[in-house]
This record gives sequence, C-alpha cells and structure tokens, in this order.
Amino acid sequence: MVAPLYFSRVALRTGDPAISYFMQQAVESPNLISLAAGLVDAESLPGGYVAEAVRKILERPESMKAALQYGTTQGYQPLRAAALEHFCRLDQLTPAQLNLDTNHVLITTGSQQLLYLIAEAMLDTGDTVIASSPSYFVFNGLLQSVGTRTLTVPGDDHGMNTAALEELLHRMNRSERAKVRLIYAVSYFENPTGASLSLERRKHLLDLVRRYSIDHRILILEDAAYRELRYDGEELPSLKSLDPENHYVVTGMTFSKPCAPGLKTGYGLGPTELIDTLVRLKGNHDFGSTNFTQHILMEMLRQGTYHKHVEELVRVYRQKRDAMLAALEAEMKPEWGVRWRRPLGGLYIWVTLPPNIPCGAGTQFLQDALAEGVLYVPGELSSGSKSEMRLSFGVEPPSQLREGVRRLARAVAKQFVKWR
Amino acid sequence: MVAPLYFSRVALRTGDPAISYFMQQAVESPNLISLAAGLVDAESLPGGYVAEAVRKILERPESMKAALQYGTTQGYQPLRAAALEHFCRLDQLTPAQLNLDTNHVLITTGSQQLLYLIAEAMLDTGDTVIASSPSYFVFNGLLQSVGTRTLTVPGDDHGMNTAALEELLHRMNRSERAKVRLIYAVSYFENPTGASLSLERRKHLLDLVRRYSIDHRILILEDAAYRELRYDGEELPSLKSLDPENHYVVTGMTFSKPCAPGLKTGYGLGPTELIDTLVRLKGNHDFGSTNFTQHILMEMLRQGTYHKHVEELVRVYRQKRDAMLAALEAEMKPEWGVRWRRPLGGLYIWVTLPPNIPCGAGTQFLQDALAEGVLYVPGELSSGSKSEMRLSFGVEPPSQLREGVRRLARAVAKQFVKWR
Repeated sequence: MVAPLYFSRVALRTGDPAISYFMQQAVESPNLISLAAGLVDAESLPGGYVAEAVRKILERPESMKAALQYGTTQGYQPLRAAALEHFCRLDQLTPAQLNLDTNHVLITTGSQQLLYLIAEAMLDTGDTVIASSPSYFVFNGLLQSVGTRTLTVPGDDHGMNTAALEELLHRMNRSERAKVRLIYAVSYFENPTGASLSLERRKHLLDLVRRYSIDHRILILEDAAYRELRYDGEELPSLKSLDPENHYVVTGMTFSKPCAPGLKTGYGLGPTELIDTLVRLKGNHDFGSTNFTQHILMEMLRQGTYHKHVEELVRVYRQKRDAMLAALEAEMKPEWGVRWRRPLGGLYIWVTLPPNIPCGAGTQFLQDALAEGVLYVPGELSSGSKSEMRLSFGVEPPSQLREGVRRLARAVAKQFVKWR
Repeated sequence: MVAPLYFSRVALRTGDPAISYFMQQAVESPNLISLAAGLVDAESLPGGYVAEAVRKILERPESMKAALQYGTTQGYQPLRAAALEHFCRLDQLTPAQLNLDTNHVLITTGSQQLLYLIAEAMLDTGDTVIASSPSYFVFNGLLQSVGTRTLTVPGDDHGMNTAALEELLHRMNRSERAKVRLIYAVSYFENPTGASLSLERRKHLLDLVRRYSIDHRILILEDAAYRELRYDGEELPSLKSLDPENHYVVTGMTFSKPCAPGLKTGYGLGPTELIDTLVRLKGNHDFGSTNFTQHILMEMLRQGTYHKHVEELVRVYRQKRDAMLAALEAEMKPEWGVRWRRPLGGLYIWVTLPPNIPCGAGTQFLQDALAEGVLYVPGELSSGSKSEMRLSFGVEPPSQLREGVRRLARAVAKQFVKWR
C-alpha cells in the first residue's frame, strides 16, 4: 500500500466544477442539442484572418523571432497599447482621460486568469466578496476555492440591484465592512442572465465604493467579457470610464468571445498598485501568457481584421439570438407561464419556468429534456432559483436552436400533461 | 486621499523577482552582451515549421474550428497522447510500462504553470520542500510566495547529493518529517549549474521517498525542462521511469526550450489523484492553456518537424556551448583560479571565481563587468556562493559569446591588478 498524498487546504476546497456533469452529458450523447455550452459559434471563427496575420508575422525574420521567443510577464507592449486604445475608444475617451497608460494593462490567459490573479492578490480566507445573484458560476467556484465569504444582492433586468447593495453595506458593522474587498459586477450582457447594469446603477455603484472605502479601498471588479457582442441598444459607458482617477475599478476584457477563444488572450486594466502586484504574482504562474497568440492579435488589430470580425460576429449572433427568441415565442404556450429575458447582447437567454417546475440536477424535468435530446444549464449552478435556466445561442446554428427549443417545449408540455 | 488597497498574505509575500534588476540592466544598455538571459537562440527559432503547421491547421475548416475554439482544461487530447508517447520514447519505454495513459498528462502554460499548480495543490504555509542548492531561482521565488519552508541539500557535478538528503531526512523528528511534501529535482542539465543527477543518485532518491513516505507520500517533483537539449553523453533514464507504479514522481516537461518559447506549452505527467487535482485547480486559473498553440505543436509532432528541429537545435547549442568553453579556456588565465563546469546539455555554464571575488548585486566585480559591457546572473540568486555565477550561451551568437567572455575576463583581471 502506498501512503496517501497530502493536499493543500486550497486543493481540498476545490471541487469538480458543477458544470462538469453537464459537459459530460453533451459528450456522451452525440444527438443531444446543447443549449448549455458556453462555447462560441464555430462557423464564424476567423480562420482566414488568423492565417493572414500568421503569414505576416512569420514572413519577416524580425517579427518571427519576436513572436516565437519568450515574451514578458506583463504582456506584449504593442498589444497592451492597442488593447488600451481599443478599450477607451469603446467609451469614446482617450487613455489620458482615464488616467491610464500601458503600465495599467496586463495581458492574461483569457479573462479567467485575470479573475484568478485578482482573487489571489486581494483575498485571504474569510474575506468578503459581494456579487449579484445569479452570477457567473466559474467565478463562484474560484471564490469557494479561496475560501472567501460571498454575499449576494439580487439582480434583475438592469443587473445588480445597487439599492440592495447599499442596504447591505449600510447594515454591516465596522468589522464586517473591514472584510469587504471586492464587488464583482458583470457589466454587459451578464452570464447567465443576459442583463446589463443600467447607467444609473453604474453611477450608484461607483458612489457606493467611494463612500464605503474608509479604512481600505473596496474595489469593483468589472467583468466586461461580453461588451463587444452588442446587438441592440446604446453602448453603455464602462464602470472603468466612471473612475477617471483609476482608483476603484479593475476591468477584465477578453479577445476570446469577440474573436477566437483558441487564442486565449484577455486583458485587465486597473490601478497602478494592483496591476504591479498582479504582474509579480503572474511571474510565479507562468512569467507571461502565450506570446505567439499575443502577436497574432496585435497583427489583427493592426490590419483591422479584428474589427471587421467583430462586426461579422455581431451580425451572426444577432440572427441566432433572434432565432432562439422566435422559437421560444412559437413553442412555449402562453398558458404554461414560461418567461424569458430578451438580451441586448452576449450569448445567453435566461428562462424562468413556473415555480412548480424545478429543473436542476436530479429533477424529472432535466431527465425529460435529456430524453428529448436537449441540454441547458440549470440556474441553480449560478445560484438562480430552482426553476430558472440558462440557454446559450452561442454554439448551435439557427436550425438547431429552433429544434432545441422545440425539444425543450416538449419537456415543459409533459409537466402539464402530468397535472391534468 | 484615496484609501489604501488591501493585499492578501500571498501578495505581500511576493516580491519583485530578483532577476528583474538584471533584466533591467540589459534593457537599458543596448551594447551590453547578456550572458544572463534565460531566453533561447533566436536565429534557430522554427518559423518555417510553425508556418507549415499553421497552414495545415487553418486550411481545413474542421481543424481550423477545433484550433480556434475553446479547448479543454486538461489540454488537447491528441497532444496529451503524443507528448506521452514522446516522453516514454526518450526512456525507451511504452506508456503502459510506466502505468501512464493520457489521463496522467496535463498540458500547462509552459512548465512554470505546472510548478505553480503543484505548489498550490500540495503546499500550505509552513510546509517543507527540499531542493538542492544552488537551485532554480524562479521556483525558489514561488515557494517564498507560498510561505513554505525550503530546506536545501548541496549539489555537485552529479546533481543533488542524495547522501546528504538521506542524512537530512534521517535527522528529522516525526513532526518535522510530517511536513515534508516535495523534493524538487532538476534532473537534466540543471539551471543554474548545468549538472545532471547521476543514475545512482536517481535510484537513491526513489529509494528515499519510498522509505520515508510513511504517514503521507513524499513526492518527487522532477523538472526535466532541459532534457532534450543533450549535446554529449548518454541519455539518463528519467526519475519518472524509475517509478513504474506512477506513485512517487511528477515530471514537468516543456516545448519551450526544445522548440519555441512563444508557443508557451509545457506538460506534466504524474499520479492519478495529483493530476486530477491539478486539473480542478487549473479550472479556476484559465480552464485550459492556449488551444491554438497546442494544435500547432501537435501538427509539428505529426509532421516530424518537431524532432527535426530538436536535432538542429542540439547542433546549434553544442557549437555555442563549445564556443563559450573555448573562450573561457582562452581568456581566463590559470593563475586566476577561475573554474567552470562543462555541461553535457542545457543552456548554462556555472563559473566559480576565487572566493575573495564576490560577484553578487552591489559588488565591485559586477560594476566592472557592466562597465566592460557584459552581464551574468550572480549565483547568489540561486543560493549559490558569493563568488559563483551562471553564464548562458542561449541567446548570443558564438562571436558574441567569445566577446562576452573576453569582457568578463577583463573584469576578473582588474581584481588581480588591484591586489598587486
């Protein structure tokens, strides 16, 4: 008998991601239509643009050598500059107006690594993070690993309810408040609900962290991963843009969703002392994310193909969102009382079944849906209610989205037949 | 006045990497010959092979989509299979003989991320790691962040002195021994000394962990990053190959050194329960390293260009090593008492000045070397002695290696003039 391995406290707190079971289902059932996966549309992936960028990089010895050699921990300087310009342009501002320069930009292995590094830099076991509910389940899993206390305030069509947040902060005593490190806000087309934080609430949120940062600063972690996938409505100013002194907001962005997840490149923008700390920590992780794909993205930004691709993508996803919304409209009978939100961007539609139809792991409804050949992500995983679910229109083509919703409707219908 | 940011205990334990100062010197002095950088030879980077692999991947829609979509947390399955085959072939064994399959392989963001994940999975503050001295300074920095206690045993021409290790383990009382989690061993052409662990010591090391794993298992972390860069001598069996039950050794490998650091892809092989834990942790970090570069490496392995490239690289580096050794022979006068090791592989030559010439940060010798226009890594950074240094023949071409050593010799000569 071999002696057992010892694992750290962090490892012991880190369970299998809740989503694993659902991903496994999709793998094992080839005829399943997955409205669960958070992947992106495969047909529109920018193979041609990437090929063109790679050709350009590798044809000149100097750029070839720069791209295949080690990069720096903070990330390729021209890409940091271009990402910063790009981000500020979305807010119709200049970097200087936001007190930002390339030292305030960190390139990460997707935006997930930024979330990880911020948690590592700012959170000890027992510290408090505030998020809205429901909220991104991968980040919830990370917080559980770290061993923080996560408090939630409800979200609705306009994102996190900041009045409820104010009440929460107000109710806390001094020692409770001293533990609050971060407020996590997905500001655009939230995963899983599709909601965006309203302008009024954005301002209120900034006001709150300014007021309640007394002995130490409470930081807003703005997750803006879906920002560029906007299909309708006005561009909202980022939380970052409402923090022109660069004190209270660190924002995570990614090239995965608007370009190609396979290039696995994200970036963060934030206060000097935070970014410096993240760079030091990242030195321990990997001393720099993949250099080659950073050069590819830089080349795509330079050639303008990145922007062209985002435009194409917005068109593709708008159609897919509309196909799914139309299918829901067509298939879900009004008397069933199924409701859903119409997202203005992102990849997800949040569906609410009547409260007497739970749809989480182990329910009859989930079993019926799988038997019909369709999969979704139960809202429970994102601490939503027992009868909510996330549908994604990212992966499947419109015809499959329609068929998937039809299958889902058959599973709902079954519940009603049963009660008769 | 804005309130101060709160940082975690880990962040507070994470200083600037000691090497930063030296990298900064290199950046600021364009005429400096850097024998310090751990980068690879730029001229031999496999631009043509990478271009060919990318063309192949992007020309077919199916492979394009697979490479630009999200990958999996554990890494691209065909690459895991190919990496496993490749690793076992170096030991002239099959995966089955080592009780390994693709579930025991994890793809990481360079081999550094494997080191990080293992530290995260296995170490709590106050736990003990044993390493040889001198030892890889980036790993030392990581352990300092984690807050472990690092014990060292001396290394020599044959790597870690396992007799000293045995004595150390023997001397410990039960509670001290209960804290020992990992023994870190760079098994081939160690950074910084260039030494490889002898076969006898490899066997002794395995014997020791088997004997001393009583209440819990003591794991060997074998860092084999330089394994494929062997210029002379016999191939030594890996520590992993001496653990056919897959219980006691986890091995880190990388495609950075033998292929291209810009592709930032490494891999680890180890016991089931460890790899499973690392995958769960990696889910929090990034849910998978860059997928695109994993596909590129897979294509290079398939086309055979990876192996061709390693052969070319071995030829290039052998020449550079010989150029540096010849320059040392020619420039360092015997009466100075400067000694160095002849490495059989890797990228480093370990040089020992007479004990009355310290060469670390703040010394006259370092200042003289910089004035002459040459930079090295002081041995101190790797907890070597005050008069040792690491010279790298990785980056500079042979002519510059010769000139760099000439400049270094002038700095040594200065010390002797002074004493006359």
